[in-house]
Amino acid sequence: MSIEAVALRLELDELYADYVHCLDDDELERWPDFFTEDCFYRVTSAENYEANRPLGLIYATSRNMLKDRVSALREANIYEPQRYRHLVSSLRITGEPGDVLDLVANFLVVRTMQDGDMTVFAAGRYVDRVRREGERWKFGTRTVVLDSRQIDTLLAIPL
Amino acid sequence: MSIEAVALRLELDELYADYVHCLDDDELERWPDFFTEDCFYRVTSAENYEANRPLGLIYATSRNMLKDRVSALREANIYEPQRYRHLVSSLRITGEPGDVLDLVANFLVVRTMQDGDMTVFAAGRYVDRVRREGERWKFGTRTVVLDSRQIDTLLAIPL
Amino acid sequence: MSIEAVALRLELDELYADYVHCLDDDELERWPDFFTEDCFYRVTSAENYEANRPLGLIYATSRNMLKDRVSALREANIYEPQRYRHLVSSLRITGEPGDVLDLVANFLVVRTMQDGDMTVFAAGRYVDRVRREGERWKFGTRTVVLDSRQIDTLLAIPL
Repeated sequence: MSIEAVALRLELDELYADYVHCLDDDELERWPDFFTEDCFYRVTSAENYEANRPLGLIYATSRNMLKDRVSALREANIYEPQRYRHLVSSLRITGEPGDVLDLVANFLVVRTMQDGDMTVFAAGRYVDRVRREGERWKFGTRTVVLDSRQIDTLLAIPL
Repeated sequence: MSIEAVALRLELDELYADYVHCLDDDELERWPDFFTEDCFYRVTSAENYEANRPLGLIYATSRNMLKDRVSALREANIYEPQRYRHLVSSLRITGEPGDVLDLVANFLVVRTMQDGDMTVFAAGRYVDRVRREGERWKFGTRTVVLDSRQIDTLLAIPL
Repeated sequence: MSIEAVALRLELDELYADYVHCLDDDELERWPDFFTEDCFYRVTSAENYEANRPLGLIYATSRNMLKDRVSALREANIYEPQRYRHLVSSLRITGEPGDVLDLVANFLVVRTMQDGDMTVFAAGRYVDRVRREGERWKFGTRTVVLDSRQIDTLLAIPL
């Protein structure tokens, strides 16, 4: 393994770590910037994903749509003061190395309600395509594949 | 830390990530190939492990036994359409570097039932010995030490 | 990314992995040694942390106080024979590189009771400052920020 391959690997680790902290720290305004301008972002169930159904609980085809989503979330502001904590593991490069990379990773989100109740809110995998833009890697495609086909209707937050 | 030590570390990360995705993607036919031919695979409780009791909820002493287990699972096919998601963290090399390495890592498995119910199915640690075979690292010994001494009787799936 | 930056990153991964196994293996006597002599260790809620309230569920301002805590735990020994399993992810260097580093990471702790019942015991983030002492990195400051403001009163164990 070359130093370049090692460095690449750690850059990707950083991308995933930054993304997670952005969400968990409720810095949603930074969130769209993890994506390319022409990105494709989707949250779907494993069932739909495996059946190639182009449905999504959340669906966006540009960074601007992600920005609109954040604005809507901030204006609505109806959600309870709950907290989310993402755990991500087992990041894996599935395709050939290059300026575009296919990746998969597992995630788990724990939600803590104000009364202290903690539950596994979501579990699943990220199926991603990242692209290098200057010094940074960005998500060209991020498909959040949930193990469950049901999801709490409060799923307004990005995953 | 030398480039060799760094590369080794990332190769091991890859091994653990590949293993996890193999299981979570239900590609069980690939699973035995993560092990050496004369492997030792065991799932046991922490209680039994610490008391040096050679018991196991699952027990195999060769790769062929793992293949048999996969065949049996595929033929039986009685299990509900549930999904498993592994999270692995804190991989640590515990012994001396060489062509055989002792490793430990923590894991958590979340199970999602078809009705959407998610639970922590298993938590514990992997106590492993890996061996290099050509370009790949393989598990010579994998002991899955469960924190719980009870486990859902559906534990037919590998961990 | 230079080989030095890569090596640093892996050294930090090792620090976090060692710490976790020390706790989960109940080797608490080793725990204070992860800290500098003049360390600051605190377990607090996200609510208090964000409001800059200097409160803590656990609070120590030196390594000796951590040792006292371990002694007290061993003598009291009132806790049930439960097991804890830490999962850590998304380690991120937040400040400038140097001999002192600011870091953040997410964690999740699963508790397994003797009857096999498993629950998410704690979730949150580590907000840390580490310092190099010879060959090792040590925690100069570790703030354990819990997502929940309630915590099981059994929280005598370190996190």
